[in-house]
Amino acid sequence: MKINISINLLIVKKYNTGMTDKTPFITLEDLTAGQKFTAGPQKVTQEEIIAFARQFDPQDFHTDPVKAKDTVFGELVASGWHTAALAMRMIVEATPKMQGGMVGRAVENISWPRPVRPGDLLSLTVEITDLRPSEKSPARGLMRTKNTVTNQNGETVMEMEAVVFVPRRSV
Amino acid sequence: MKINISINLLIVKKYNTGMTDKTPFITLEDLTAGQKFTAGPQKVTQEEIIAFARQFDPQDFHTDPVKAKDTVFGELVASGWHTAALAMRMIVEATPKMQGGMVGRAVENISWPRPVRPGDLLSLTVEITDLRPSEKSPARGLMRTKNTVTNQNGETVMEMEAVVFVPRRSV
Repeated sequence: MKINISINLLIVKKYNTGMTDKTPFITLEDLTAGQKFTAGPQKVTQEEIIAFARQFDPQDFHTDPVKAKDTVFGELVASGWHTAALAMRMIVEATPKMQGGMVGRAVENISWPRPVRPGDLLSLTVEITDLRPSEKSPARGLMRTKNTVTNQNGETVMEMEAVVFVPRRSV
Repeated sequence: MKINISINLLIVKKYNTGMTDKTPFITLEDLTAGQKFTAGPQKVTQEEIIAFARQFDPQDFHTDPVKAKDTVFGELVASGWHTAALAMRMIVEATPKMQGGMVGRAVENISWPRPVRPGDLLSLTVEITDLRPSEKSPARGLMRTKNTVTNQNGETVMEMEAVVFVPRRSV
């Protein structure tokens, strides 16, 4: 538990959410629409791209740099689900820690406008677009975020909207 | 190339799409809205759940069976992105092979109505809900699918809609 709190305070300082050191976990009341959090850059290697794809998305353009030349991409590119998984790691790194963790209710509108290539450096921005109390439970609310993953050239490689449960402060 | 075609013919026979052995790759013209394809069951082990989460979704309820008891889930559960990645593998297995592979344009409305637990056996159903020629390119079209992942009790653990590029037959 001590470790959790230490990590949290680091993130609080890093992202300047306005919380004090006496606020170990964030609640809905600490957040506002329009807030942004960032993480990365996160390098993606060819070895990681191939290892992920062999396990989860075994298609030539994700698993074989030579065969990939004859595909629509013309080169090895990361599975979109690999990019999504890397985005999740950056979301965990970027977002202030909540009691109970980040539990997603739904994800909407994932798109991959450009491929991710070996050696790319990915960065993430999470923007809070909406915050509201739950209609079912007074102990929690729902946070809607827009998540954007960009490469080292500032080009967007993935976008998605997520709806995440957020705890509310005990009253 | 020979291996690709062999795999394809197996799938054609297994899922009875009405194609003959002379049709090595499927095109838009071979598919119809309402068609369903299935894959699985696919077992998910505790070791796989923890390995995926350590890499991509490092939160106690995905990485530590003991600490998970004190979380909202009360037990170790798979990251939703792990379930999504396993769904992609089953989509590759289930869907007749297309020239150029399965390239996703977008994914909409992912939800995880129930958690995936160690030992669960996951199955996938892909249902084609819409098929249309591309307005930009005469060489391809777009296929919309509803993808449902269920556990060994027939309960839905993930749903998502995907929009995938499909090649058209040369005319």
